[in-house]
This record gives sequence, structure tokens and C-alpha cells, in this order.
Amino acid sequence: MAKDNKITFFDLNHESGCTTSPFVWATKYAIKHKGFDLDVVPGGFTGILERTGGRSERLPVICDDGEYVLDSWLIAEYLDAKYPDRPTLIGDPSVKVLAQFLETWLWKTAISPWMTCYILQYRSRAFPHDHAYITESRERMFGNRKLEDIAVGREDRLPKVLPELELLRGLLGQHKWLGGETPNYADYRALAVFLWCASVADIPPMTEDDPLRDWIDRGFDLYGGLGRIPGMSPLFGLQLREGDPEPFAKGPSLVAGLVKRNTGPASTAAETAHITGAKSTNQGEKAEA
Amino acid sequence: MAKDNKITFFDLNHESGCTTSPFVWATKYAIKHKGFDLDVVPGGFTGILERTGGRSERLPVICDDGEYVLDSWLIAEYLDAKYPDRPTLIGDPSVKVLAQFLETWLWKTAISPWMTCYILQYRSRAFPHDHAYITESRERMFGNRKLEDIAVGREDRLPKVLPELELLRGLLGQHKWLGGETPNYADYRALAVFLWCASVADIPPMTEDDPLRDWIDRGFDLYGGLGRIPGMSPLFGLQLREGDPEPFAKGPSLVAGLVKRNTGPASTAAETAHITGAKSTNQGEKAEA
Repeated sequence: MAKDNKITFFDLNHESGCTTSPFVWATKYAIKHKGFDLDVVPGGFTGILERTGGRSERLPVICDDGEYVLDSWLIAEYLDAKYPDRPTLIGDPSVKVLAQFLETWLWKTAISPWMTCYILQYRSRAFPHDHAYITESRERMFGNRKLEDIAVGREDRLPKVLPELELLRGLLGQHKWLGGETPNYADYRALAVFLWCASVADIPPMTEDDPLRDWIDRGFDLYGGLGRIPGMSPLFGLQLREGDPEPFAKGPSLVAGLVKRNTGPASTAAETAHITGAKSTNQGEKAEA
Repeated sequence: MAKDNKITFFDLNHESGCTTSPFVWATKYAIKHKGFDLDVVPGGFTGILERTGGRSERLPVICDDGEYVLDSWLIAEYLDAKYPDRPTLIGDPSVKVLAQFLETWLWKTAISPWMTCYILQYRSRAFPHDHAYITESRERMFGNRKLEDIAVGREDRLPKVLPELELLRGLLGQHKWLGGETPNYADYRALAVFLWCASVADIPPMTEDDPLRDWIDRGFDLYGGLGRIPGMSPLFGLQLREGDPEPFAKGPSLVAGLVKRNTGPASTAAETAHITGAKSTNQGEKAEA
């Protein structure tokens, strides 16, 4: 049992002290979800091997009563296995598989383009002693392009990300959390994408009225405002320019169409009337068969 | 308890007898997953209200010892609630939420374009008495375009669907089933997209060597070859033409990069060497932080 209800948490920080890595963010939420306090070991991108006593080159890492656990998925699984009587992070093996699908979709759809937009802030907000490592490692990751060149044209790229997020908007229009009625580790993996973005966004990536805002705000507010720490920037407030695409759809979502309930002929009468050209005053709709 | 271990299943068939609707397919698998036999009430797109005694305009519908249950999600939830001692379909509320995300992604990515490619077979394979309903309802769904016009250009559209399926390939390269070690209702919802496609595909939509084939074949083989019934067409065998895009990626997937395990410095040495330009003989890789 974690001493004094605390788990040692090796953070990955910017100079402001705010957490930046999505994997580390997800782990931070996971520990709070299990009801533990964080005994934070702060630090930046370099020196991780030294801070963890030679145990890891990457974060997150936790230490629970002397037991070190590495890797964000392994940590979540460790916490559920060791503390089964506390709130569950991953209630079924399928949650892990399916959360990895949604997370990878989010990396492809959001983090990949956003990283090109905020790469200079990703460096400038880091500790000064991390700048050289970030420059070198990220320029290699981007095919030996200079960070300054990667960022060029971001005003044109930012508005194009938003319409691509429609599937997630549709899903969260139907469900309070990815966990259902309460958040689970799937929420933390997905929220971590937006938490990471807030740690680097010198200009907001999303519009004020984005339907995702409700879930994101509720997620940032969890555990006493875990996502509201100093160093985080506003996500909402992107000003669209003439010619930018519509940031989100105004009508019913594809998800809504697929999850509508058939509770009998009254629930499908309007749809039937629509597709057969008959008249109906019933407003129920159902897509099946 | 279902009498004689049988549940009455209102099928939606083509003239060949094969099941076509994805929702009905998912329900067929769900009933077999719970270990029940199917007491099939066959039929096509028209006459559903009559076949179900006025209870529903849409399928699936089941009847379990006189109790009618409508709607593919409600049926799965009913089966888990009524028969908790049999294999679980939805082991956590989050499985439903996340499976709806993956399913909607599949509808957007695969069913939507494939429907335009196979819309004429969707009609010609139906019972003759269904043809008028399919023509009228589907032409309305597609903005009053004739089915023949919708199908035009399908040779160009089919090859473009395949690269878009990469996220699912990456996921199933890491996990045996969407359910984890064994299939669950998330697998059946996703497999239903391919089962539907096999019911209409007069030419194959996927190449012989598609990495998704392993999971699809294992899924079609479940429960004594539930997906191998007469009337189904081959999914694999699409011949690519010069200029068609690569159907799938040959290197490591984005999913693989995100789910790699950090088990200590040896597991990350190769990646570290790569991003810092140093030399390493270690082949382990890890993406975190």
C-alpha cells in the first residue's frame, strides 16, 4: 500500500512546471483516479536516466513503496492489479484495445499536425538545458528539417485540423465520457492529447464554440482542476479567416445515426416516411436495416 | 431461459438466404457468442412489420421465450443482462462507447464508399419483391440519384478505400481480437462491416495479401463458419491497376509506435540512438516522452 497514500511520480515538465508529454499526463490522471496523491519528481527532457536511478530513458515512471513501474500502459495495469478495490481504470481488456484505436486516430488527426504548428513553443517553453536535445531529436524525427521550417504555414494548417475531429464530437455528443457515465483510462488517454496541446499552444487551436469543449473542460476540471495548472494555454479562441473550412458540422452526426434506438414502429416512422417518400408527423428516427 | 437453447432470430436476407445488414450480422454473432442456437425467421427488406407481428419496421429483432427485443445494441445488452453466466459481449460500459467510435470510423471509411460500389448488387441479390423498395429508398438516401449513376466509377473508388484502413490494420497487428485474447461484441460490430460487404461484393474490395485478412478470416470462421454461408462473395482478390495507391503500409504502424513497451533503457536505446544521432546496437524501440 502506497505510504501516506502517495505515489512517487516522475513528471516531464516545461520550465513553467506544467506537464507536457501526453503519456505522462495520462499517468498523472490515472494515479489521481485511483485516489492517490502525487509525490512529484519534477524535471525536463534530459537527465531522465539519472533522475530514475538508471532505470529508464523515458517517462512516465512511478515508484510505489520502492517498486518502480515504467510505461504508461503498464502503470495503469499495475495500478488496477495492485489496487482492485479502488476505482477501475481499464474495466475490460477490450477497453485497452479500443482506446488504443481512438488514441492513434487522435495522434494522426490532431497531434501530428498540431506538433508542426507548435514545435517552436515545444522547445521555447522547455527548460533551457533541454533546448539542444529537443532541437536535435525533433529535427531528426521530421527528416532533418529545421524547427523554424516545420512551423511555417501553421495559420493555414490549424483550421484544417478541426473538421477532422468530427467523429470524436459525434461520439461525445452521445456519451458523457469515453468510460460511459464516469471517466476511465480511455478518457485520460484522449484528454492527454488536448492537455499536451494546451502546454504548447501559444495561439488557440480550436474555436470558442467547439462542441468538444464540454468534455475537454470537464476533463481538465477533474481532481481539483488537474489540467488547470500554471503554464497551460487556452485551447479555445481560434479566429477563423475567410476561406477556412467549417470547423464542425451543425447537423446530426454519423455516430448519432448509427446509435439511434429502434424501440418500435413509432421510433422509425419518420425515417421510413423520408426514405419511401410517404408523409409522417412522427419525429422518431432510426437507421437500422 | 431460452427454450431448447434456441433464440428466435428475425434475419434480413438476400434471395440466396445469406444475411446482409451489418446490424443483423452483429446480432447473429452475439447470439452464437452467448452459446444459443438460432431459430431463424427468414425474410427480406419488405414485410418486416408483418413478420414481427407489428412490433418493428427494422431488424434485428429477436424473440426469447415470448419476449421480443428490438435494436442491435439493446439485444446485446439484453443478452448480457439476462444470461450473465454465459460469455460476456460487453464487459464494460466503455467497450460500447469505444466500439461505437471504431464502428462509425469504419462506416465512414469503408461502408460509405463500398455501398456506392456495390449498390446494384445490393439490389440485384435481394428478393425480387424487395427491388422496388431498395431502388426507391436508396435513391432517396443518395439525394435522388439513380442507382446506376451512383455505381459509376467504382473501379477508381475501390482501390482508394484500402490505404484508409491502415489504423485498423495497425491495431490488429498488436491484438488478436478487439476483445483482447477472445472476440467480443466490438469484434462483431466491426466484422459485420466486412460480412455485409461479402454479401454484395461481385468483385473483391481487398487485395489477397491484406493484413486484415487474418482477423477477418478468423472472424468468418467463428461458430462453425458463421460467415461462410452460401451467397457470400470473396473479399480478397482485388487486382490493382497501374497508378492505384499502395493498399497498405509495409513498415511499422503508428499504433505499434504508440503501444511499444518501455521496459528500461535497453528497450529504448535504439530509438535514443536514432533521434540523437548516436550509435547503438540495441534493436529495442520505444516512443514515450
